[in-house]
Amino acid sequence: MLAKMGSGMSPCAACKLLRRRCARDCVFAPYFPPDEPQKFANVHKVFGAANVNKMLQDLPVHQRGDAVSSMVYEADARVRDPVYGCVSAISSLQQQIALLQNQLAVANAEIVCMRMQQAASNAVSLKSSPQGTPPEMSSPLQPRSPELQHYKPATKALEKGEALWT
Amino acid sequence: MLAKMGSGMSPCAACKLLRRRCARDCVFAPYFPPDEPQKFANVHKVFGAANVNKMLQDLPVHQRGDAVSSMVYEADARVRDPVYGCVSAISSLQQQIALLQNQLAVANAEIVCMRMQQAASNAVSLKSSPQGTPPEMSSPLQPRSPELQHYKPATKALEKGEALWT
Repeated sequence: MLAKMGSGMSPCAACKLLRRRCARDCVFAPYFPPDEPQKFANVHKVFGAANVNKMLQDLPVHQRGDAVSSMVYEADARVRDPVYGCVSAISSLQQQIALLQNQLAVANAEIVCMRMQQAASNAVSLKSSPQGTPPEMSSPLQPRSPELQHYKPATKALEKGEALWT
Repeated sequence: MLAKMGSGMSPCAACKLLRRRCARDCVFAPYFPPDEPQKFANVHKVFGAANVNKMLQDLPVHQRGDAVSSMVYEADARVRDPVYGCVSAISSLQQQIALLQNQLAVANAEIVCMRMQQAASNAVSLKSSPQGTPPEMSSPLQPRSPELQHYKPATKALEKGEALWT
């Protein structure tokens, strides 16, 4: 959403906070509308207006919106949690990944266990069946659902996660 | 690891970059040793020395080391990726979580499917067995492994992850 570009009538939230004239080509105006003062206040508090100005000037215009969004996210996180900032979110996500990997390992172990059980059961049925044919059943050592054939272990994902923040 | 406190002989990396005298009670000195100049350079570039100084002064001493570590991590990420900074790590972790949740759902569906198959197989064995007793086998509708009894679906984890950065 673009704010009204600096017109002298309605300065953007950045220029208002910095008490300066909002020029027509103000680098902040498209991303910090006057009706969202807190958005710039946190970015200013954490990164400093001069740094944000420089970072935006160094980027092509089409990437500045995303850069502002990520800086606002980081700044808000740092204001909420001055010690860990958004790094606490990274830790929390890594913990969730470890938990899911554990649950997946348990589920896969259960599948292997059940397949072995099924194979043993098939062998018993084969012996006791008078015609020597087992009850209709798919191969116990092949996955039934086609999705499982595409299953790949998540080891790579863990490695990537672990390298991010330890 | 604490650097030599400002002694006048060996200024910390921050004071060296800022070309100022490193006082005995320099707030940067314990965390920015002179032999790691890049550590402060990125933090200075992204957050600004004055902001870092203020953020550290506002924290109790025992939390400053963690705050510096998280700021260094964020600053390094922002220098590597000026558009998304460490928010790209958050997106990547969220994607890994979605992938793991999908794999877990497939595995759990497979378990349910195999249990139903096993139950059908038991019913057939029971009918065809002359003594009316099935081959030895655990209950098909109860998990064999004790770990699976503690299994909890990861829905809560997803909700938390989704709320972090969308």
